[in-house]
Amino acid sequence: MAQTDTARQITDFLKSLRAIRQYEPTLVPEDVVRDILDVARWSGSASNQQPAEIVVVHDRPTLKALAGLEGYVGHLASAALAMVVVMPGKWEEGEVFDEGRLSERIMLAGLAHGLGSSIGWFDDTGSNEARRLLNVPNDRRLRTAIALGYATAKPRRGRRKPPERLVQWERYGEPRG
Amino acid sequence: MAQTDTARQITDFLKSLRAIRQYEPTLVPEDVVRDILDVARWSGSASNQQPAEIVVVHDRPTLKALAGLEGYVGHLASAALAMVVVMPGKWEEGEVFDEGRLSERIMLAGLAHGLGSSIGWFDDTGSNEARRLLNVPNDRRLRTAIALGYATAKPRRGRRKPPERLVQWERYGEPRG
Repeated sequence: MAQTDTARQITDFLKSLRAIRQYEPTLVPEDVVRDILDVARWSGSASNQQPAEIVVVHDRPTLKALAGLEGYVGHLASAALAMVVVMPGKWEEGEVFDEGRLSERIMLAGLAHGLGSSIGWFDDTGSNEARRLLNVPNDRRLRTAIALGYATAKPRRGRRKPPERLVQWERYGEPRG
Repeated sequence: MAQTDTARQITDFLKSLRAIRQYEPTLVPEDVVRDILDVARWSGSASNQQPAEIVVVHDRPTLKALAGLEGYVGHLASAALAMVVVMPGKWEEGEVFDEGRLSERIMLAGLAHGLGSSIGWFDDTGSNEARRLLNVPNDRRLRTAIALGYATAKPRRGRRKPPERLVQWERYGEPRG
């Protein structure tokens, strides 16, 4: 089966995701938020444990308070909403991996609905404060908040390394005959 | 902006990803492999560092050898190919998160082309052996191998927890007026 038009449309869509950190004040309709959350719900996880919980934050003062915490989170200030990911804190490596999968899907689902997004990453002190702000118990792990909103401008073109620096056909890889 | 048909098509696509662990012996065309790798190349990463390298393994004896290592990797034995992710091993938490994002995209790009996929996860001893097999230097981190191939059967329906166990509207979350 070679490439089809539909396959190409979807992979073009996947390639088009860029981080967006400046948002219009426009609200996001509730059915769109629900659809993004449903994509999140259908995310795969190690042994289908589905460890993630999501706190949806629309409240402007709370978004601004989160944006002021330690970490790479300043762009939350102008977001229409944030999806804050909460993990059980039982298996660090597996949970971080699943959190990456989940975050990617939330951003892709947002993009499907015309929304810009960017991952916000709390440092340890920021994470503690964010838990307190959102009433998340201390034994949970809170690392990321995905900001969502309509972009104020088109994303930049973006830069990626050339394929030969990603794919190690020659350097490592399978034995050659 | 409410939901559009195109948005719905894409989010339906995102929701339809399931782990597939049994594959037909059919080969995957090279242009499809290249397109999946291009989606991988356009994956976002912390500070756009693009830390990942990918080793593409088509060789049947190598796939079988990888499948026999310690971890959750047995399904690599029947895969048409595997994409093995190699990270620099410099910032554990950030790299695992980026690896999750990348793995999700590889599986979605595969699905766009009609391929089934599943994450293979090496335990520590399996990881050491896999590095040796693939000539990956010891200072790199190798955790996952994404198996890809045409599915032998339709995926199962899948099970996910109900929305109210994912989204904590009430339990935590924003202050209410």
